Amino acid sequence: MDVEVVAIGTELLLGQIVDTNSSWIGEQLAAAGLNSFYQTKVGDNPERIRAVLRQAVDRSDAVICCGGLGPTHDDITREMIAEMMGASLVLDETVASRIRAMFESRGRAMPENNLRQAMVPVGASLIPQQPGTAPGLICPIGDGGADGVIYAVPGVPYEMKEMVSGTVVPDLRRRSGEAGTIKSRVLRTWGMSESGLAELLADRISELDEAGNPTLAFLASGVEGLKVRITAKAPDEAAVVAMLGAEQAALEPLIGSIVFGVDDQNMETVVVGALAERGLSLAVAESLTGGYLAARICAVPGASRVFRGGVVAYHSDVKVGLLGVPEGPVVTEEAAVAMAEGVRTLLGADIGLATTGVAGPAEAEGKPVGTVCLAVASPDGAIATTVRLPGDRERIRQFSTITLLDLLRRTLIQSG
Amino acid sequence: MDVEVVAIGTELLLGQIVDTNSSWIGEQLAAAGLNSFYQTKVGDNPERIRAVLRQAVDRSDAVICCGGLGPTHDDITREMIAEMMGASLVLDETVASRIRAMFESRGRAMPENNLRQAMVPVGASLIPQQPGTAPGLICPIGDGGADGVIYAVPGVPYEMKEMVSGTVVPDLRRRSGEAGTIKSRVLRTWGMSESGLAELLADRISELDEAGNPTLAFLASGVEGLKVRITAKAPDEAAVVAMLGAEQAALEPLIGSIVFGVDDQNMETVVVGALAERGLSLAVAESLTGGYLAARICAVPGASRVFRGGVVAYHSDVKVGLLGVPEGPVVTEEAAVAMAEGVRTLLGADIGLATTGVAGPAEAEGKPVGTVCLAVASPDGAIATTVRLPGDRERIRQFSTITLLDLLRRTLIQSG
Repeated sequence: MDVEVVAIGTELLLGQIVDTNSSWIGEQLAAAGLNSFYQTKVGDNPERIRAVLRQAVDRSDAVICCGGLGPTHDDITREMIAEMMGASLVLDETVASRIRAMFESRGRAMPENNLRQAMVPVGASLIPQQPGTAPGLICPIGDGGADGVIYAVPGVPYEMKEMVSGTVVPDLRRRSGEAGTIKSRVLRTWGMSESGLAELLADRISELDEAGNPTLAFLASGVEGLKVRITAKAPDEAAVVAMLGAEQAALEPLIGSIVFGVDDQNMETVVVGALAERGLSLAVAESLTGGYLAARICAVPGASRVFRGGVVAYHSDVKVGLLGVPEGPVVTEEAAVAMAEGVRTLLGADIGLATTGVAGPAEAEGKPVGTVCLAVASPDGAIATTVRLPGDRERIRQFSTITLLDLLRRTLIQSG
Repeated sequence: MDVEVVAIGTELLLGQIVDTNSSWIGEQLAAAGLNSFYQTKVGDNPERIRAVLRQAVDRSDAVICCGGLGPTHDDITREMIAEMMGASLVLDETVASRIRAMFESRGRAMPENNLRQAMVPVGASLIPQQPGTAPGLICPIGDGGADGVIYAVPGVPYEMKEMVSGTVVPDLRRRSGEAGTIKSRVLRTWGMSESGLAELLADRISELDEAGNPTLAFLASGVEGLKVRITAKAPDEAAVVAMLGAEQAALEPLIGSIVFGVDDQNMETVVVGALAERGLSLAVAESLTGGYLAARICAVPGASRVFRGGVVAYHSDVKVGLLGVPEGPVVTEEAAVAMAEGVRTLLGADIGLATTGVAGPAEAEGKPVGTVCLAVASPDGAIATTVRLPGDRERIRQFSTITLLDLLRRTLIQSG
């Protein structure tokens, strides 16, 4: 089944907003086993929207149309689709009263044009939505839907995502005759290159390719590491979950040592969870990462269970005076260990982490840009490592942070 | 002149890469006064690329085609364009020897398929590029270019940007008969809503709309504030720069107090510059921002001229023990001032900054999510403010950071 995406909005063409919606939808379609061959952006112009939608309906089985469902006169997606359906737009009283109620509950007068969002083409059905927002539309095109279907969803990402995941993709799979369930699980890895990972998994991928279900895909995700996505199809939810579990177990001996998390678990979430489980508190001392490590940890909801705080020791005086680093070179493992132990003591934490290195643009202490020393200090002693990281200032800081968090994660696992 | 953008690559449709290139090109075209009505993404498939390019050439005057110029067999953009030109591909010896030299200089053997990047359709001209990368192509379509032109540029953003800014946009403006020069300047503002800014500038925009040159546009940029873009056309570079300067001067009495920077100057760059000019050093104490403030400051190249470091005082013990904050509630202006003064003294800096507040998800100390206290301490004393910020945990942290940096900026300007 061929599905294409049309994103509507002049602001997309002008580059005022990057169209991340189409990419996200493309990912969902691929994971659901649906073809997606074209994605088009078009402005808020009736003739051009008409032409783009007509072409999309002609060459694909279904079209997901994002944006242009708002209350202003620029928002003409529903008029354009109604025209293609040869249907008139009528006010849906249920939707209208919900919109009125939303304004009343906020004590605000409702501008009349908000009722445009309650207009529904005759023959279309509604996609359920969160309270107070405009519904999406499922619009059959041609006699009895003979020419396919257009799904109209809002451009606001969280509203769009809820509708596409909850309604559009399941409806597409039903139409495509896929009676079963399809699901993915992502294993998140750190510490190995894409070619290294491909080599480790080559035999398994060949085996799976022959059977065709489940399948494996790699997704390079920059400083978030490499993801291995398992996708399985089965008659029902229980069976598909079992298949995903079985494949994950089969991959464990091959790549288990580099898998740090599953699905939405990023490195800092995993580390905060591992510390909380063990009842350990954390403090960090940062030089080249300059607060980025602390900021990532604090971004985890519930970080306060384990995180005491940190010291950004950017100037050498701060390293020496506050953290007790010996005078002398600071891009060394010794300095990193002294920082990690210093901050652990200073802030009264069980574990101390430290980063020191050369983020660039110029080399320092005779060491090239990208040289980074990382340390973990705990009641059992300290470990340190030196890495040489690629990229610009920003990437070096990001890679340093995730590399150090992964070192802590491995240390915690080893110590049980 | 109508220009459209075609982005080629299956990875774009699968959502493995977000197509930021098209957005960026759209912004450049708009700034250059060129129409851009469609942007299409298509995979690495000959028939579909052929159809998309044919349609683009038919309905637009020029097409910018991104991606698919690499060395692998998936990269078929140049074959597709050569076919549309009715031209054969021939090896360009200059390009080929440059590619060979690049591999030699790195001591690596050149895989033969890299020479695909030196294949040029007869009749196309080259877009100059950085050493060692593949050139872009300017390809006239139809007899003598009667059907328009396709520009082929790489998908790698920095290579693409150099070619589009340096060659493609100037060539398009020449073809569109625009003999003059067009340039934009962005004034970056913080502290006023879009509707407030629109009101302040309403009269000026009306005046400019009548004359049509220069023009003003607003670009909402989230936590980076609101941008006001001045675009001017003039016969030559000197005249256009003079026009931009004159318009900037005309806007100064209207919005000067909220303009913090120009073009690429973000808030932290401006603040680091202002501190360096005055020979002042900086330290920061962070609670809810958790290192994000320090990280943004450290991201400025040359931050080490002014930045001594910071303390992330996430746990109350750290606020009290290390920064000398009195025991008691910590989401108060008094606590913020104590933190700012504490870190200033602790790290030996001229200026101390502090953030404390409720990032959520739950309220704290009886104060709602989004309540944030900010302070600036200097040898002349301290100032503090309480703000109520919208959004989720991440946005509250980001807004806190830029609001505090702006407070410091204003303080520095006032004290001369």
